[in-house]
Amino acid sequence: MTTPDRPKVAMLLYPGLTLLDLIAPHAAFAPTTEVHLVWKTTVPVTSDSGVVVHPTTTFADCPADLDVLFVPGGQDQAPVAADEEVREFLADRGARARYVTSVCGGSLILGAAGLLRGYRATTHWSGIDVLALFDAEYAEGRVVVDRNRITGGGVTAGLDFALVVLAQLLGEDTAKMTQLMLEYAPAPPFDAGTPETAGPELTAMARAGSEAVNRAMTTVAKELAGKGWGGDA
Amino acid sequence: MTTPDRPKVAMLLYPGLTLLDLIAPHAAFAPTTEVHLVWKTTVPVTSDSGVVVHPTTTFADCPADLDVLFVPGGQDQAPVAADEEVREFLADRGARARYVTSVCGGSLILGAAGLLRGYRATTHWSGIDVLALFDAEYAEGRVVVDRNRITGGGVTAGLDFALVVLAQLLGEDTAKMTQLMLEYAPAPPFDAGTPETAGPELTAMARAGSEAVNRAMTTVAKELAGKGWGGDA
Repeated sequence: MTTPDRPKVAMLLYPGLTLLDLIAPHAAFAPTTEVHLVWKTTVPVTSDSGVVVHPTTTFADCPADLDVLFVPGGQDQAPVAADEEVREFLADRGARARYVTSVCGGSLILGAAGLLRGYRATTHWSGIDVLALFDAEYAEGRVVVDRNRITGGGVTAGLDFALVVLAQLLGEDTAKMTQLMLEYAPAPPFDAGTPETAGPELTAMARAGSEAVNRAMTTVAKELAGKGWGGDA
Repeated sequence: MTTPDRPKVAMLLYPGLTLLDLIAPHAAFAPTTEVHLVWKTTVPVTSDSGVVVHPTTTFADCPADLDVLFVPGGQDQAPVAADEEVREFLADRGARARYVTSVCGGSLILGAAGLLRGYRATTHWSGIDVLALFDAEYAEGRVVVDRNRITGGGVTAGLDFALVVLAQLLGEDTAKMTQLMLEYAPAPPFDAGTPETAGPELTAMARAGSEAVNRAMTTVAKELAGKGWGGDA
């Protein structure tokens, strides 16, 4: 469905994505933009927590000229980054999109598609070292804006990210109205959202849990080097 | 699928639910609990922003004894509250669940099922007046705990809510570990998440947008009064 006056947003779906990476920004974008959930086919995909979701369009049918190209992270982000059909889709739409964006490990997929070379960006705290393999420069910040690249940190950063993007697309009042409707006045009962506040013990456990994902993405980065993708132009 | 050591969580799906009300807590619960997405049938349902999701079980097959019964809000919360089959399911599982919980307008659905009579609770800021029609007492707070009822405010309150519930179920370390993995260290770019901070103009516009939903729920509350449901025992 095309709504001529609304900014066009395409959000990548894939098997093993982290659904909250997608659904937090989606909730913010849906009321005022035209959102497409895009994958190779419209066959439902299973996210990494087991929830099944339906793509609304395919790579072939996705609008060619986008206001926002968005990529979420996920447990299975490495196989997606390794998939040339995915990288070609992202490189094509990313070359013309007004904003090229991601949350969490989605920035590593953008990196594999060659879209972050020479840009400052962020990712989930556990994946920071991998960003450099795609010639992106890690920058501190919950949301990092460098020219038309807008990247958010891990998972829940997608809310802060989406409000930054909405303000760019439609102005601050639209972003604030969206924040009010989502009642986004956060009040976490604990202060453990970063390695610094969670402390070394929980951080070591969490890091062990994301080791396999980062190792797989590192392998992808090395395989792509010298082939015109990823960190190697 | 049953995992004997994990707390059992059943989350209500329905056509027209707000998907972020569901997916924010789901992301927090999924790594350490056994989550069921439950509806009348396993036919996919469409959320109020158009994203299609799949139930994993039915009212008939949902575990009888739950650790957590959870209800999200949504644009179409009133027809669900008006549906006796839904209310009977909630009343049955709610009578035995360790915790009876909701985010956003989900508390009004709990109220329609008679599960909040005499309890302090919260809901989306725009629906506060409707809570009283179900004999619940509105209490300020992003997350309100009254005995075994745990209710969260609007949409994004589901993150704070889920960490409170996780700490009750599995201890503070599990809650903090989850917070770290979700990188939940919020940093909203604007301060407009409540009527007080958003100001009267945006609040009036947002309130107009939720008027139809609240009017429909008020009608449901009045219809249920005197019939053994809702606010009338």
